Amino acid sequence: MPNLDEYLQTHADRFEQELCELLRIPSVSADPQHKGDVRRAGEWLAAQLQKIGLPAEVIDTDGHPLVYAQGPEVPGAPTALVYGHFDVQPVEPLDQWTRQPFEPAVAEGNVYARGASDDKGQLLTHIKSLETWLAVERRLPVNIKVLLEGEEEVGSESLVKYLAANREALACDCIVISDSGQFAPGQPAITCGLRGIAYYELRLRGPCRDLHSGSFGGTVTNPANALSRILASLIDDKGVVQIPGFYDDVVPLSDAERKSLAELPFDEAEYMKEVGVKQLAGEAGYTTLERRWARPTFDLCGLTSGYQGEGAKTVLPSRASAKLSFRLVANQDPDKITQSLRKHLDRVCPPGIEMELIAHQGSGGVLVSQDSPYMKAASRAIEQAFGVAPFLIREGGSIPVVGKFAEILQADVLLLGWGQDDDNTHAPNEKFCLADFHRGIKASTRLWEELAKLTK
Amino acid sequence: MPNLDEYLQTHADRFEQELCELLRIPSVSADPQHKGDVRRAGEWLAAQLQKIGLPAEVIDTDGHPLVYAQGPEVPGAPTALVYGHFDVQPVEPLDQWTRQPFEPAVAEGNVYARGASDDKGQLLTHIKSLETWLAVERRLPVNIKVLLEGEEEVGSESLVKYLAANREALACDCIVISDSGQFAPGQPAITCGLRGIAYYELRLRGPCRDLHSGSFGGTVTNPANALSRILASLIDDKGVVQIPGFYDDVVPLSDAERKSLAELPFDEAEYMKEVGVKQLAGEAGYTTLERRWARPTFDLCGLTSGYQGEGAKTVLPSRASAKLSFRLVANQDPDKITQSLRKHLDRVCPPGIEMELIAHQGSGGVLVSQDSPYMKAASRAIEQAFGVAPFLIREGGSIPVVGKFAEILQADVLLLGWGQDDDNTHAPNEKFCLADFHRGIKASTRLWEELAKLTK
Repeated sequence: MPNLDEYLQTHADRFEQELCELLRIPSVSADPQHKGDVRRAGEWLAAQLQKIGLPAEVIDTDGHPLVYAQGPEVPGAPTALVYGHFDVQPVEPLDQWTRQPFEPAVAEGNVYARGASDDKGQLLTHIKSLETWLAVERRLPVNIKVLLEGEEEVGSESLVKYLAANREALACDCIVISDSGQFAPGQPAITCGLRGIAYYELRLRGPCRDLHSGSFGGTVTNPANALSRILASLIDDKGVVQIPGFYDDVVPLSDAERKSLAELPFDEAEYMKEVGVKQLAGEAGYTTLERRWARPTFDLCGLTSGYQGEGAKTVLPSRASAKLSFRLVANQDPDKITQSLRKHLDRVCPPGIEMELIAHQGSGGVLVSQDSPYMKAASRAIEQAFGVAPFLIREGGSIPVVGKFAEILQADVLLLGWGQDDDNTHAPNEKFCLADFHRGIKASTRLWEELAKLTK
Repeated sequence: MPNLDEYLQTHADRFEQELCELLRIPSVSADPQHKGDVRRAGEWLAAQLQKIGLPAEVIDTDGHPLVYAQGPEVPGAPTALVYGHFDVQPVEPLDQWTRQPFEPAVAEGNVYARGASDDKGQLLTHIKSLETWLAVERRLPVNIKVLLEGEEEVGSESLVKYLAANREALACDCIVISDSGQFAPGQPAITCGLRGIAYYELRLRGPCRDLHSGSFGGTVTNPANALSRILASLIDDKGVVQIPGFYDDVVPLSDAERKSLAELPFDEAEYMKEVGVKQLAGEAGYTTLERRWARPTFDLCGLTSGYQGEGAKTVLPSRASAKLSFRLVANQDPDKITQSLRKHLDRVCPPGIEMELIAHQGSGGVLVSQDSPYMKAASRAIEQAFGVAPFLIREGGSIPVVGKFAEILQADVLLLGWGQDDDNTHAPNEKFCLADFHRGIKASTRLWEELAKLTK
């Protein structure tokens, strides 16, 4: 498709500049101070869609807005719904960034900024591929619906409501999502399995005020001491979660799956270098890839209590809190996990402590069919753009809406990730490889063509 | 002593204004940004001492400065060394203060400010009593040495060096320290026992950067998970410290001591109300006062890891740290505790974690003789000012220098506390009762007189 590819080449620099424009908007959905910025990012994308000829609207919700657009009708052709999110993770700890997180900078072929890979850079590939088709061919090969949200990093509540309320208008054959990673540099992948998540904040209150740890220590339960004991009770030294019933609904890995995972060219030494540890660890009895993609986990995401400044302060804190993340696998129900967790916490909470558990977000794990014609079309499209067929892999992270998309719209989900493991998503110095950005756009142009071949 | 008391009454308002002046100086010794303010507080006190006729000097050290002054020689009379500290604790959490911590305000007979009770208000009582004697009688009844420091809240390192280097110049019969509490409002006390302290910061490092808890969770040791398990291993659910050897040097409470503690009119219900808990807790097998004053403890003073902002961030943090405080009782050696703690930590630290233990401050517990003539003189002085004889009590907090004073200067330590339990020392909304301020000054004027009776 020479004309399409010529357009991609001619406009490559502008595509990058536009990505940087979007990255400059600090759309941190978790921080109420950035509410206006999340909307600005949505408005920027709606304007982009309108400019390329797709009528787009910004849809108000109880939370952050959605953006929706629809392509011209292509009778008989399949319908693809493109999803992405324009909100980003918080940037803390700021002192570990080598550049300002919202002043995108290009270095060594990467663009560095919060949201570069997760998900602004990835979602933009599909908008740029739609632009390319409309500019060069003045048509789209398939029916396209674009649905973007600004709440992915805080639970997608508004999107899920919108999906349920607009089931028919959003009807489609497949849902295209680029918010995941490749297997390795030069080795693209389609992700067929995602872990779910159950995320909580646990808040403990002891005395009504901070106390002097000398004058009062030994007479009241210290909430920070209590928090350590409670958290330690959640997992044993073999990495096994200790909440009764936690594993009840886990579908064990089949021998076939374990074999297929074992055959992937996963380099443990390289992985250890990447994450900077001398030793890997985790649930006993499973390989690293199994633990990473197909087993549930418990990870503390945050601890807060008492004095955190420099030097020593001898305080018995009145409060202590933790952020808890459980990753779930298919069939584990976050609501059931919440019940089991509450029961366990009630049992282990010591006297003198008031406990509050806030459930922040929950979503089940997802397994996507590897055999659908849409999956095969996506595989061919990626091979054309990247020069190599994608591996079919799983991913340890969660995209909570994926399960909701599959469940509510009853369509195949195509998780076509353009990211890399070292993109530092959710961490300081997030980046996105610009070559992957352009290959992603190209793969997306081919995807519409490959899907068009499925026209009845 | 009508003339002394007239002076106290005439100048009471000015004494309060001068206390507020001192309280306005944010002399937080733990915070390098306030280094200049700590010095300013020392200079303010040196100026006060000079104004009342005592040649005073500000002495530079490797840390915060000391202030030293000496009264006129009174041959044959005992020598009292007055000690106090002009540095204060940090003010965090600021949002829990109802007033600005360094804008002293008077309400309901109290002055509210950081340092009001600990120790600026208390130390000033002795300077004002010296002023009163010198103004009214143009003499002091005994030999007086005044030694003030700006590092008490961070370990008194410079003071201890100064004591050791100036043993002869500082020679004295008793050391007068007002940096503790009364038994209850209207019931003064002399503190005959103090707990020691061993304070640490434990820092864990896992992966080289914060990781996405989904993409990486399950493959590396999470330092926040590890921290919880390590901290939980330090104490059991009966409040007993689990470090091997921790209790080896603890002198058990004698039956006589337990009986005497049991006879104090300690109101558990009132205490629970004061600290705002529905249930007291602590080491099994000991009464509340025993646990508070005469048993060692382990209290976490701070926890820090990962995301601490609003909402959810799914991060596997690269670092986690805690501030640990052990209160020690007489005969427990902080250096031995450090060795035992290190050994225990090395044993429980999981693979994949780099651990660093920083020892911040250590001091042994102290027991002061109740039978010395100086103690009896102090008791009489307090009775004259407060109208009731003081109880002889212990205190759960530590004044690390007390042990050093006793050890280096070989003198009796008189811990004459003017504070109250609800003064919120080391906590938001610190206060000091102004009536106690004035009674403290009066008791101090009587103390010099009572000590003078011991003249040989």
